[in-house]
Amino acid sequence: MKKVAVSILGATGSVGQRFVELLSNHPWFQIVSLAASDRSAGKKYADVVNWLMPSPLSKEIGEMEINLCEPGIPGNIAFSALDSSVAGDIEAAFAHEGYTVISNARNHRMHPSVPLLIPEINNDHLDMVKQYTTGQIVTNPNCSTIGLCLALKPLYDAFGIESVHVVTMQAISGAGYPGVASLDVIDNVIPYIKGEEEKLETEPLKILGKLVDGRIQPADFSVSAQCNRVPVIDGHMECVSIKLKNKASPEDLIHAWRTFSGIPQKLQLPSAPQYPIHYLEGDAFPQPRLHRNIDKGMAVTIGRLRPCPLFDYKFTLLSHNTIRGAAGGAILCAELMHICKK
Amino acid sequence: MKKVAVSILGATGSVGQRFVELLSNHPWFQIVSLAASDRSAGKKYADVVNWLMPSPLSKEIGEMEINLCEPGIPGNIAFSALDSSVAGDIEAAFAHEGYTVISNARNHRMHPSVPLLIPEINNDHLDMVKQYTTGQIVTNPNCSTIGLCLALKPLYDAFGIESVHVVTMQAISGAGYPGVASLDVIDNVIPYIKGEEEKLETEPLKILGKLVDGRIQPADFSVSAQCNRVPVIDGHMECVSIKLKNKASPEDLIHAWRTFSGIPQKLQLPSAPQYPIHYLEGDAFPQPRLHRNIDKGMAVTIGRLRPCPLFDYKFTLLSHNTIRGAAGGAILCAELMHICKK
Amino acid sequence: MKKVAVSILGATGSVGQRFVELLSNHPWFQIVSLAASDRSAGKKYADVVNWLMPSPLSKEIGEMEINLCEPGIPGNIAFSALDSSVAGDIEAAFAHEGYTVISNARNHRMHPSVPLLIPEINNDHLDMVKQYTTGQIVTNPNCSTIGLCLALKPLYDAFGIESVHVVTMQAISGAGYPGVASLDVIDNVIPYIKGEEEKLETEPLKILGKLVDGRIQPADFSVSAQCNRVPVIDGHMECVSIKLKNKASPEDLIHAWRTFSGIPQKLQLPSAPQYPIHYLEGDAFPQPRLHRNIDKGMAVTIGRLRPCPLFDYKFTLLSHNTIRGAAGGAILCAELMHICKK
Amino acid sequence: MKKVAVSILGATGSVGQRFVELLSNHPWFQIVSLAASDRSAGKKYADVVNWLMPSPLSKEIGEMEINLCEPGIPGNIAFSALDSSVAGDIEAAFAHEGYTVISNARNHRMHPSVPLLIPEINNDHLDMVKQYTTGQIVTNPNCSTIGLCLALKPLYDAFGIESVHVVTMQAISGAGYPGVASLDVIDNVIPYIKGEEEKLETEPLKILGKLVDGRIQPADFSVSAQCNRVPVIDGHMECVSIKLKNKASPEDLIHAWRTFSGIPQKLQLPSAPQYPIHYLEGDAFPQPRLHRNIDKGMAVTIGRLRPCPLFDYKFTLLSHNTIRGAAGGAILCAELMHICKK
Repeated sequence: MKKVAVSILGATGSVGQRFVELLSNHPWFQIVSLAASDRSAGKKYADVVNWLMPSPLSKEIGEMEINLCEPGIPGNIAFSALDSSVAGDIEAAFAHEGYTVISNARNHRMHPSVPLLIPEINNDHLDMVKQYTTGQIVTNPNCSTIGLCLALKPLYDAFGIESVHVVTMQAISGAGYPGVASLDVIDNVIPYIKGEEEKLETEPLKILGKLVDGRIQPADFSVSAQCNRVPVIDGHMECVSIKLKNKASPEDLIHAWRTFSGIPQKLQLPSAPQYPIHYLEGDAFPQPRLHRNIDKGMAVTIGRLRPCPLFDYKFTLLSHNTIRGAAGGAILCAELMHICKK
Repeated sequence: MKKVAVSILGATGSVGQRFVELLSNHPWFQIVSLAASDRSAGKKYADVVNWLMPSPLSKEIGEMEINLCEPGIPGNIAFSALDSSVAGDIEAAFAHEGYTVISNARNHRMHPSVPLLIPEINNDHLDMVKQYTTGQIVTNPNCSTIGLCLALKPLYDAFGIESVHVVTMQAISGAGYPGVASLDVIDNVIPYIKGEEEKLETEPLKILGKLVDGRIQPADFSVSAQCNRVPVIDGHMECVSIKLKNKASPEDLIHAWRTFSGIPQKLQLPSAPQYPIHYLEGDAFPQPRLHRNIDKGMAVTIGRLRPCPLFDYKFTLLSHNTIRGAAGGAILCAELMHICKK
Repeated sequence: MKKVAVSILGATGSVGQRFVELLSNHPWFQIVSLAASDRSAGKKYADVVNWLMPSPLSKEIGEMEINLCEPGIPGNIAFSALDSSVAGDIEAAFAHEGYTVISNARNHRMHPSVPLLIPEINNDHLDMVKQYTTGQIVTNPNCSTIGLCLALKPLYDAFGIESVHVVTMQAISGAGYPGVASLDVIDNVIPYIKGEEEKLETEPLKILGKLVDGRIQPADFSVSAQCNRVPVIDGHMECVSIKLKNKASPEDLIHAWRTFSGIPQKLQLPSAPQYPIHYLEGDAFPQPRLHRNIDKGMAVTIGRLRPCPLFDYKFTLLSHNTIRGAAGGAILCAELMHICKK
Repeated sequence: MKKVAVSILGATGSVGQRFVELLSNHPWFQIVSLAASDRSAGKKYADVVNWLMPSPLSKEIGEMEINLCEPGIPGNIAFSALDSSVAGDIEAAFAHEGYTVISNARNHRMHPSVPLLIPEINNDHLDMVKQYTTGQIVTNPNCSTIGLCLALKPLYDAFGIESVHVVTMQAISGAGYPGVASLDVIDNVIPYIKGEEEKLETEPLKILGKLVDGRIQPADFSVSAQCNRVPVIDGHMECVSIKLKNKASPEDLIHAWRTFSGIPQKLQLPSAPQYPIHYLEGDAFPQPRLHRNIDKGMAVTIGRLRPCPLFDYKFTLLSHNTIRGAAGGAILCAELMHICKK
């Protein structure tokens, strides 16, 4: 089987590096183009990148010459790891020229004709992209949104949701590189991440919304979010309180989570976790360092389900912010779109 | 002025060390006895203690011989930094023999005739201790409770409170020494602290309760708590959402906090912070490493007040868990009791 | 091919867990017995162990019942992860009863008839173990020693060594679990590890020594060691200065390292790294988080070779202390002994 | 007594902030001018600075308007916390216009007519500055150099030094703000700090050198340095091995350290530590978090003196890199110069 040619926009940053790592031995996709800013263009990838991934950079990729982020480069599926300060225009330009852009940036996420895709949850939203005459943009949700929505989806379907309160403790890798200064985060917590609470309060409603006549009807519950940065390398933790529409026992919730499965599992997409949700027994689970890599970093882990005096239930969830929450999630979207097209 | 003789029970642990540090140059109190388990009794304090405080141990204190934790030792005000596994009986024994025990342990906190004291908030609860025929026990609330209650008190008085949702990110020093294993908390978060959520959900209602006919009528709101351990040395952060009984603007809340003052401020007690509550401007404040020592570590700092889609308001607070939240808070209680007696 | 039955002594501690992890899918060995103290014996492994490895504990192993550490248990190759406070007697008892004990403990390392084995370096030392009439003990060097010796061996053979000065920055996992208290190591360095400097100053001389008439003639250079604990999860760093017997250029040293290969590579033992030594270009390499897992955590990485004003050269090395430096290294020893026996 | 007017060049960076903090209540000096780059000039200090010091910024200083770093600003003693990329020219310009520049930057340190001053060690080197016709530059050594030289000086005077081998573990605050990226240093060590080893190998020889006919004759021993960055907020650790010219017992060395005192102690300069060197008993001392603030952060602490198989002795030292090693050290220089002038 001939592999599909793909390109990576913003290939030198930390999300870009994850794309490179995860696509290096991908069974379906082949990296044919790495694009970055004009500071890097024309140089070898290995000479420019400050490689921070745990597995070594392959010789072959390291030798590739970096392109400018302009339409015309090979690789018709373009994974965008661009910074939001430039992603808007560049991604639109690529889509306009016929590329399928799978973006990790926030710029187009809430656009009424752009899907905000989590393949296990809302693959039907892909119907929206036919409206693009040439090319298309599909977006990956915010790293904290993905974990939350995967945990909410089975509950939303089975019991309905009235309200969700979430407090996050997010890893430093979510801020890219150099990102968070060490003086700001060692022996410290930063109780603020710019724009993050707004995303967590809006994106889930689009993702769990219904596509009606080509438009998303947002889900009808409210989310309140508080976001913190903690000294953890990878893995976003979220303390969730939830009020359901219908009564359910703790066992009901755990059953809903453990039996949850989506189209990526059914199609056995290469990047799909075996189980999208792992509910862990144990008083003090999940923990970022112990559980972020479960199921290739593509699953959400949940623990500590217990009654809440104000809402119905409280629980803690964890998801890997640069795998499931960024590059890995985007690759799963591309896998789904690729197989659906065939 | 002759100083008042005080003793420290459990003087070698991390809270015990804070008592030693804070009482070393106290204007009113003089340490005359250090007590610990029989492993340490009979030895010099300096030879036994694994001193972890930032200021050096004084020669004089280091030379003191450690006593057993048994009534009869000098120092009629006994500060208890005992572990809860032994605090219950030992503290009762001391009280029975006529000591005034100011305890940091949880054992007697919820006892109907023991005050759970935060001097700025409920100094009238001290009226309860007359019921003790000989000696008395006064308790200091849990380290997370103190910060929360200081933030709630002005709001409770001015606007009434309907419900409080709190998620904590707590420092490792709260677990004592050796306490949290480094393998459990570097590059990690532990989403569980034994017994902590229960304390945060019950203690505030007693503290903000009303003393009627010698009994506390608990405050009539609900608290939901989720507690996490994060890699921070000192300083507990709390993300709070609150629903008030009466409408209030953000300016009203900030005004209530900034003008809040209690009996320790009025009496200018030696350990009293100038302002019990500091509201900080700035997107990303408070932060443990930057603000835990404000006002000698005896104040609570608050920031990020903003509307909440589910409750009325959200904000973040910080208090120093081993100063205000433990030894410093207990010493303030003793100062109040001492001056009231005169 | 039928797998060889092996047992793990001290299976619940952190090195024991690494043995379990690395042996779980081993092509030659099969865990048939897990042994621990009488606190754990008789219980299921999953119920007792505080599992800290990055990959999840397998169901099958978790169900195994724990044995006492007494001869008679199945698994004639016994991997010992015992604490040195008990390892001496228990290992001797197993050897006496005919087991082949591969030990990670320090107790028997310097015994004149026990090999201190690094398969790439001194596989001929295995000739010593014939002296044992029943059973045998083979030991794995200290975690810091292994990385140092792998780096020294090619230089020793090619140029001779006169003296070695080494300062280590060691990971917390080297102290086991719970091990280092978080209050001791966050925002801190501990300039002392009990017994470690002595091991680093003596073990290399035995390892690089020559077996003559059944006795080791130690290598004839001196080592000076200073050992520190730093807040790193896994991976020991060592700053080395070295004086050679014969002149050599930096290129000579790098060539010696890069072309170094031993019997495990020749025999393609399952746990052998492809290259025992990786010399890294780059100003600031190696780094624990980036490079500790190179070649399955079984290789040593070296960087920053440069002239030294006092010795001949300075360089920095890194090796994974719980893989190459403990469980992985011991398994490689067992693989070598197993294949040599056939 | 009227205070002396001083200015701070580069007042917004992390060393600049330390100058502000330490000079805020200085008994002799009064900050009359804060200077920074044109990005900040014209704005209020509080609006521009990202204040990271543990004590809060005073209202009065916060209100000050920032000047450009150009001669003409008030404050004839100019403390320079400028980055070395701009310090060379700016400092020279100020000196040319008659200012006394006390600089923390490396640019002029090795200039033959600029003193590299540690007041306890080489106050006689100040005689060099008469050569400047207008104004003068006096420099503060590198943060690692200061701690090392304070430890070496008493040994150099009493026993002579033949060679020094030093491996550092340096705090992140040494790199300024934002400085070291958190992704580079959490769960990690960086075995390289640009230019640092060169400074440590050359500056001590000038500092311990002799002023003869207006020129420094450098001290006649060799230093070999290896520098690492570790996840510590403040406090540089150094593992030192030393060969002396004359034999001395451990007690001799400790006596030399403990009795060492210099002109700042004799003159009781406001910033002088009571004892420049504290030798600590205890297996595992000094440690950055426990000991960096001893004697106001102005002393060096030493521990673990023991014989070295290659040199004569090994020991570990610690000094506070942004107090003694930067702003505090520079202020001590200014105090000495001020009192000498009178």
